[in-house]
Amino acid sequence: MRTSRFPLSTLKEVPADAEIVSHQLMLRAGMIRKLAAGVYNWLPLGLRVLRRVEAIVREEMDRSGALELLMPAVQPAELWQESGRWEQYGPELLRIHDRHSREFCFGPTHEEVITDIARRELKSYKQLPVNFYQIQTKFRDEIRPRFGVMRAREFLMKDAYSFHLDQASLHETYEVMFETYSRIFQRLGLDFRPVQADTGSIGGAVSHEFHVLAESGEDAIAFADAGDYAANVELAEAVPPAGERPAPGREMATVDTPGQHTIEAVSAFLGVDPEQTIKTLLVQGEAENDVIALVLRGDHELNAIKAEKLPGIATPLTFASDEAVRAATGASPGSIGPVGLKIRTLVDHAAAQLADFVCGANQDDKHLTGVNWGRDLPEPETADLRNVVAGDPSPDGKGTLSIVRGIEVGHIFQLGTKYSEALGATVLDEAGREAVMLMGCYGIGVSRVVAAAIEQNHDTAGILWPEPIAPFRVALCPMNMKKSEAVREAAEKLYREMLDAGIDVLFDDRDIRAGVMFADMELIGIPHRIIIGDRNLEQGLVEYKAGRSREAEFLRLDQVVQRFA
Amino acid sequence: MRTSRFPLSTLKEVPADAEIVSHQLMLRAGMIRKLAAGVYNWLPLGLRVLRRVEAIVREEMDRSGALELLMPAVQPAELWQESGRWEQYGPELLRIHDRHSREFCFGPTHEEVITDIARRELKSYKQLPVNFYQIQTKFRDEIRPRFGVMRAREFLMKDAYSFHLDQASLHETYEVMFETYSRIFQRLGLDFRPVQADTGSIGGAVSHEFHVLAESGEDAIAFADAGDYAANVELAEAVPPAGERPAPGREMATVDTPGQHTIEAVSAFLGVDPEQTIKTLLVQGEAENDVIALVLRGDHELNAIKAEKLPGIATPLTFASDEAVRAATGASPGSIGPVGLKIRTLVDHAAAQLADFVCGANQDDKHLTGVNWGRDLPEPETADLRNVVAGDPSPDGKGTLSIVRGIEVGHIFQLGTKYSEALGATVLDEAGREAVMLMGCYGIGVSRVVAAAIEQNHDTAGILWPEPIAPFRVALCPMNMKKSEAVREAAEKLYREMLDAGIDVLFDDRDIRAGVMFADMELIGIPHRIIIGDRNLEQGLVEYKAGRSREAEFLRLDQVVQRFA
Repeated sequence: MRTSRFPLSTLKEVPADAEIVSHQLMLRAGMIRKLAAGVYNWLPLGLRVLRRVEAIVREEMDRSGALELLMPAVQPAELWQESGRWEQYGPELLRIHDRHSREFCFGPTHEEVITDIARRELKSYKQLPVNFYQIQTKFRDEIRPRFGVMRAREFLMKDAYSFHLDQASLHETYEVMFETYSRIFQRLGLDFRPVQADTGSIGGAVSHEFHVLAESGEDAIAFADAGDYAANVELAEAVPPAGERPAPGREMATVDTPGQHTIEAVSAFLGVDPEQTIKTLLVQGEAENDVIALVLRGDHELNAIKAEKLPGIATPLTFASDEAVRAATGASPGSIGPVGLKIRTLVDHAAAQLADFVCGANQDDKHLTGVNWGRDLPEPETADLRNVVAGDPSPDGKGTLSIVRGIEVGHIFQLGTKYSEALGATVLDEAGREAVMLMGCYGIGVSRVVAAAIEQNHDTAGILWPEPIAPFRVALCPMNMKKSEAVREAAEKLYREMLDAGIDVLFDDRDIRAGVMFADMELIGIPHRIIIGDRNLEQGLVEYKAGRSREAEFLRLDQVVQRFA
Repeated sequence: MRTSRFPLSTLKEVPADAEIVSHQLMLRAGMIRKLAAGVYNWLPLGLRVLRRVEAIVREEMDRSGALELLMPAVQPAELWQESGRWEQYGPELLRIHDRHSREFCFGPTHEEVITDIARRELKSYKQLPVNFYQIQTKFRDEIRPRFGVMRAREFLMKDAYSFHLDQASLHETYEVMFETYSRIFQRLGLDFRPVQADTGSIGGAVSHEFHVLAESGEDAIAFADAGDYAANVELAEAVPPAGERPAPGREMATVDTPGQHTIEAVSAFLGVDPEQTIKTLLVQGEAENDVIALVLRGDHELNAIKAEKLPGIATPLTFASDEAVRAATGASPGSIGPVGLKIRTLVDHAAAQLADFVCGANQDDKHLTGVNWGRDLPEPETADLRNVVAGDPSPDGKGTLSIVRGIEVGHIFQLGTKYSEALGATVLDEAGREAVMLMGCYGIGVSRVVAAAIEQNHDTAGILWPEPIAPFRVALCPMNMKKSEAVREAAEKLYREMLDAGIDVLFDDRDIRAGVMFADMELIGIPHRIIIGDRNLEQGLVEYKAGRSREAEFLRLDQVVQRFA
């Protein structure tokens, strides 16, 4: 391709409304343009990358034996009513009325539609297992779309759905998908990690997320230094501390803590470590007006997903209002604690291990010191309530945990019978009995992968594409082609030879300064550059640079093609 | 692919709600399934065909120098308001509100979005010409979707939009697209014809449609037997008859025609040819309460598109109510005629050529015979008002016209400045002046091509795919594989060899009767069949059948691969 026929739309300035680096670079490189909030045009340069990701995903899905189909974007409300999600899904579901006032949605996912297909087309266990997939445009009406295509409303997704007679078969296909996803992200040239994950609103029992590792990732991932354990921090179990709780060493005392309403403030004021304090959070119970106390060590964070799963706690997790806190404790939220509390109290394992700790006194601007479980208040009812932190023991007993940031680009689920039960998707088993099919589902955010790849691979000059998804593999950069007939001839000849050899080359035939040309090629991230200049040409040489290497290599003109062939 | 891993969803019965053969066969072959009115799932078999069409379209568009991009399905109302189409488009435009009550539509076409991209990204004449295309899902909220994917609401389209500094450049790209479309439909293996066409609501001056010829086609196409002329009947000019009008030979007389209100009835009743009668149609004029008479020869059909383009006639063409007809003529619509009429009367050239004709008398149940222009009523104001018919002279003077039926699968337009003017899409020309860009647009109904291919290529047994778009090229049909180890071994070996040679083969490894297997393979339309049976195997032979040939050819086992390589 020639830049004279492939207009680059590079920008010098960082667009003001782009917060993360992938969004900035995709705009600056001319890969995407915003059409509306969370809705993007893919310009030719960006689409080349998107199509490469798509092609690798398709090849590996085909290789796994999955069958590609294509379901519509527009889905009838009736199917979502059958599954119960028409009500549950909330405003992220873009609801549509057609000209006859019939209700539809722009599909954010396709469990209902595929289960409808399965119940019509699959009649016998002999047709199982089967795994259908599509690469298709979806829409989620995010309340605050941001970060470009990382969290867009309209996006391209690969979604697959498998159907099984029994759990063993589901497990087997799940393993195949696990391997397939690992191969896909390897082939895409990304540093990634599969982690155990929460199944969230999709449902099901077992699931893994695939994360592209990047400092800017929205998710925290815990992984063991001495084994295979890796899990989203949302899910990672905090192992209860080993050993006995220390014996009480101090008497409980009430101290004034005027205006000190956070753990940091109270710790500093009293000169104690946050690890020696506890914090108490009041959340709504399932029953109306029921309030439950959650108690954590001062330096730990509440894990809302773990808390939601505990019996008696309202879903989604909702904090009690200031009024409800005062009604239950007699104090405002910055001064509350478990001592003398009359409501149900759940205590994280780490907080339950403390002796002589500091907590709120349930009187405004007062705290208690030297508090001890079993002496000043009852022995605690314990639970796993917190996010793991670096240094925690790994749940599988192999070493300790580290925390890294990741961007979720894939998610595989063992769904079970959630949708097949609701929609009545059954087959006849070997004995001729109707059996509800088990399902798995497997997603990859195809457009998100492009952004995640950039978050992981960039520098101050621009994008550093992994070679398998670079928009072009080689940039051919002639210097002063307009003035030098020798350069023009050599460049045109080399370009034709590279095309003939099937090398994916971008020939920058614009009449621009070398600095501008190099800046563009570095911004759009072409992995290999061939620079043709008069001086080197006299010796039959061209300059070659790989990636961001400052060091040039010199190639004879007749070596260039074989170098990339 | 093995049928044990690629479940066929063939149906024996013709689905009741499928009116046309392509819809019936796509359902019966298991290519598509209806999800909602005009909204279809593409099952794996159907998607293979769709992807093949898509691949050929993409290859040829790339070869033409067009640049692929991807615009969103969801488009903001603001752009459609800028072009004026938010109001004009009517209920076919699926309007959407997001969670913030902002207005969007599910794009039925992308002129607005691409013009918005062009006005932002194209600044200089040096970037022109450029031709952007996408292959993308669109939605048109048809009032009565029908005929399966032939006239679906959600459909896959290739749309391209080119930008130019001047008409010469637009013309050049238009010619390239004309050639590209011709190559695409040739490569798809379809019998097609490009024809001059009306530009309709898209706008612009010059356009051609590409039609797949099929008896079931919705469009009538006129083409000359002695030249290149071909046009949609909507557009085809009816050449005024040569020569003088015959002289009057009879006196005008009023005759009773009780209950005879159609041309057929009146002609039969009076014993005259319909060619010797005229019919008079009253339509609304542009001014309120204005009614205009259109006069045609009795055997001719009104061409609404031609009539709409005449000055003074309301658009869209609207027939006057019975009350308005009576007010203007004194009679009901079955008895009206031009004699004594006080309203503006436009007469088709052919009707103006008649002498001694029959027409309504403007009295209920009475007609006039022996009527003559210039004697019994004024010399007519003539216009081209009718559809051409077979035998009419070709407008280019080369022979006479024939009429065939076609299915419109492609349409190319010289749009001019309609959208670039409305949205202010300008570039700087060589003199540094702002110039509004000229545009062309070029569409192919990718999903419709699949249905059109079937309309053109089928028989009573099923689909007869043109080889370039067949879902599989070769069917490998073992007979009684479960009972014969020799057949199984030969089939498995041949299958592996064919896969290794890159031959696209469907291995029917189901344990079913030969008749069922052959019926399925004929229904889904695999062009080549290899049948492996015990008796032939003993001689080292397999049976080969091409298409629907009844005659078998016998191939040695070691000849099969080379036959298809």
